[in-house]
Amino acid sequence: MSCPDSLLLTDLYQLTMLQAYLDHGMTGTAVFELYARRLPECRGFLLAAGLESALEFLENARFSAEEVAWLEASGRFNRRFLDYVADFRFRGEVRALPEGTAFFPDEPLLQVVAPLPEAQLVETRLINLLQYPTMVASKAARSVLAAPGKLLVEFGLRRAHGADAGLAAARAAYLAGFAGSSNVLAEQRYGIPAFGTMAHSFILAHRDEARAFADFALSLPRNVTFLIDTFDTEAAARKVVELAPGLKAQGVNIRSVRLDSGDLAGHARKVRRILDAGGLPDVGIFASGDLDEHALEELADAPIGGFGIGTRLATCADQPYLNCAYKLQEYAGRPKRKRSEGKATWPGRKQAYRRFAADGRMAGDTLTVEGDRQQGEPLLQRVMADGRRLAPSPPLEEIRAHAASQLAVLPEPLRRLEKGLEYPVTIAPALRRLAEEADALSTGSKP
Amino acid sequence: MSCPDSLLLTDLYQLTMLQAYLDHGMTGTAVFELYARRLPECRGFLLAAGLESALEFLENARFSAEEVAWLEASGRFNRRFLDYVADFRFRGEVRALPEGTAFFPDEPLLQVVAPLPEAQLVETRLINLLQYPTMVASKAARSVLAAPGKLLVEFGLRRAHGADAGLAAARAAYLAGFAGSSNVLAEQRYGIPAFGTMAHSFILAHRDEARAFADFALSLPRNVTFLIDTFDTEAAARKVVELAPGLKAQGVNIRSVRLDSGDLAGHARKVRRILDAGGLPDVGIFASGDLDEHALEELADAPIGGFGIGTRLATCADQPYLNCAYKLQEYAGRPKRKRSEGKATWPGRKQAYRRFAADGRMAGDTLTVEGDRQQGEPLLQRVMADGRRLAPSPPLEEIRAHAASQLAVLPEPLRRLEKGLEYPVTIAPALRRLAEEADALSTGSKP
Repeated sequence: MSCPDSLLLTDLYQLTMLQAYLDHGMTGTAVFELYARRLPECRGFLLAAGLESALEFLENARFSAEEVAWLEASGRFNRRFLDYVADFRFRGEVRALPEGTAFFPDEPLLQVVAPLPEAQLVETRLINLLQYPTMVASKAARSVLAAPGKLLVEFGLRRAHGADAGLAAARAAYLAGFAGSSNVLAEQRYGIPAFGTMAHSFILAHRDEARAFADFALSLPRNVTFLIDTFDTEAAARKVVELAPGLKAQGVNIRSVRLDSGDLAGHARKVRRILDAGGLPDVGIFASGDLDEHALEELADAPIGGFGIGTRLATCADQPYLNCAYKLQEYAGRPKRKRSEGKATWPGRKQAYRRFAADGRMAGDTLTVEGDRQQGEPLLQRVMADGRRLAPSPPLEEIRAHAASQLAVLPEPLRRLEKGLEYPVTIAPALRRLAEEADALSTGSKP
Repeated sequence: MSCPDSLLLTDLYQLTMLQAYLDHGMTGTAVFELYARRLPECRGFLLAAGLESALEFLENARFSAEEVAWLEASGRFNRRFLDYVADFRFRGEVRALPEGTAFFPDEPLLQVVAPLPEAQLVETRLINLLQYPTMVASKAARSVLAAPGKLLVEFGLRRAHGADAGLAAARAAYLAGFAGSSNVLAEQRYGIPAFGTMAHSFILAHRDEARAFADFALSLPRNVTFLIDTFDTEAAARKVVELAPGLKAQGVNIRSVRLDSGDLAGHARKVRRILDAGGLPDVGIFASGDLDEHALEELADAPIGGFGIGTRLATCADQPYLNCAYKLQEYAGRPKRKRSEGKATWPGRKQAYRRFAADGRMAGDTLTVEGDRQQGEPLLQRVMADGRRLAPSPPLEEIRAHAASQLAVLPEPLRRLEKGLEYPVTIAPALRRLAEEADALSTGSKP
């Protein structure tokens, strides 16, 4: 499939609204913010991810000549519109939470300040680029917290919703603290360590399981993991014990055996005894198969050193979308908010401040209007002006270290899987006043 | 983001197994089949989709010189492997269910016959390309069945898991019977009609809601839909009534008003009365906001003519992954199956036959080995030989007509949203015999 990275990858209304904005001279400065309306039921916090892709998108957002010609041929648009899109580039300013930052509902993940037509046009793809990595990072962080000291590997490519999702999931999981991914392109593209074992088909293609193990080990002697559940898990573990001395003599380093089905804890205990009794105490046990953070917590006491976590993570199976929005907060200097039932928003350009307790843990955030300095550290940083990044994106390792430092200072209730107390995000008086002002200014409610 | 369409978009073990296969001369003919192990709880049938992308992937699967150099530099692979991947192309044969075909667990969606290294290497991406569109088409079909005669539009791009997911969702929903999508690229790429309304931000950017309506209508007079829930839905409907005569005089065609929040049925009834009383009986009501097939069923009696269905469809929110597998069924002429706990499979090259009742409805399928002719129509068709498509892919409109004809002959219980009787898929005696033979041949179980 040829690559769908095009500015036409948007909702039609972004283009029709653009024409209306241009026709009526609505090109004043707009402020949009992208934020979560609510936490998913099963999350105590969110971890920001996807910013690098979003900034890359904004820097390179152009319509090709072919696309402009197609828009013209569609018959929907006028000359003013066509001239505008032919020259389009994003020239706005962006503030954002650095990737790896923990955040909460109503706190802007991203703020765009740009002429209204520019800020509006990029909405759909910005949400598309930020929502999914943020969901994966937020869920992956739970596995990291649930299984301290275990090797966690992202395995979700095959069931991710497409190529982009597979790649983004590997990056988001690594960012959140996973050791790596099965995804080779993620290693080539991002330097994320790739991990691999073998498939059942490899075993099945051979006439004999032991022969399959030996073939694989001799071809790839450096870090061998044998998949041992194709027929009889414990029998296969005994074969590994039998094969080990011969393989060792040929320079093979058996790193682990992998379980992928059945009662993982029960099999792990039996296999551990077989390996130990067979003189292989250093051969680890790696497990996979329908795992998520809850399964990891249940397997905490099993003799399993590493986990492949795929489908449920890469599809965010417990909550595959975030209730998030990219909303107009200010236009031409006037604060804005909508009051649709159940969807009212806080208006204006915002900043969030975070306070810390004496022990270094996060103690509470304050959401307020820009310029209203509050106690604590401001969370949003200016990352783009005139459509160009102010600095190169930080290396992934730095983002990963930032995420780790965020997880380290989460309040204790947020580190647990079950939902505990909500993290306090206070709305500052200045923001409440602005909301009242926005309501008073809006004539929409006075027909 | 540069496009992730690369053969490195795979699991590392596909490459390490490839090296082992090559080293040990395991290049005999393999048969792999991709199928669903189980239906999701909330589905009575699946609708095949994604085949066109899968065949395009197979036809174009190559490693670039840069990728081969990267693989060499990784230090993991030997010369034999590197020479092989430098020249790699897929030369296998493919049988598949035509897109739009209804199918059931254990029935192959796709069958690959190729030298083992080729058939194995393409596993990850084939699942990735077929699973998601099939899930979306299967779910979209439920909305089509739940809301006969309504205009259904796919709105999910922003919350889809990436760019390619957004595009694939638009195509899969259209294929299943939706009228179109908000996704402009889907129109440019596939000819899928794009639909659009306006956003709350458009209303908010204006000082006055009525002014926003008029601005939009005069810029895009042909098929106007006003979003009326930003402040007070019924008040906004009355504004539309007031504006209508003036707009009509200026050539504006008001097609509908859109509701996006609150009690959709309640608002729709009130708005309908306002529009009718105001002389606008032809202005329709379009609704959106967290909709899925169950919401459509509940809204069946509301005066709503069309629906925008986004997030829940494009993320397959009720079941975001399919329990599916791509399994080795035969190698070098010998049938294969694994017997991992809970994951045992039917071996061999298979074909499914479908019987029909006197009223034309589907009456039951038989799954058997290739060549064992059964009553009914064979479902899998040969679509690729020597790595090339045997015929151009059918036009999307033809696929859509095929899907419609499949939905028309679904047994009545499968047309309802709640789970009814399971559709009967019989395993033929010849396939049962082959499974026994595969078990007898396998030495894996006899350590």
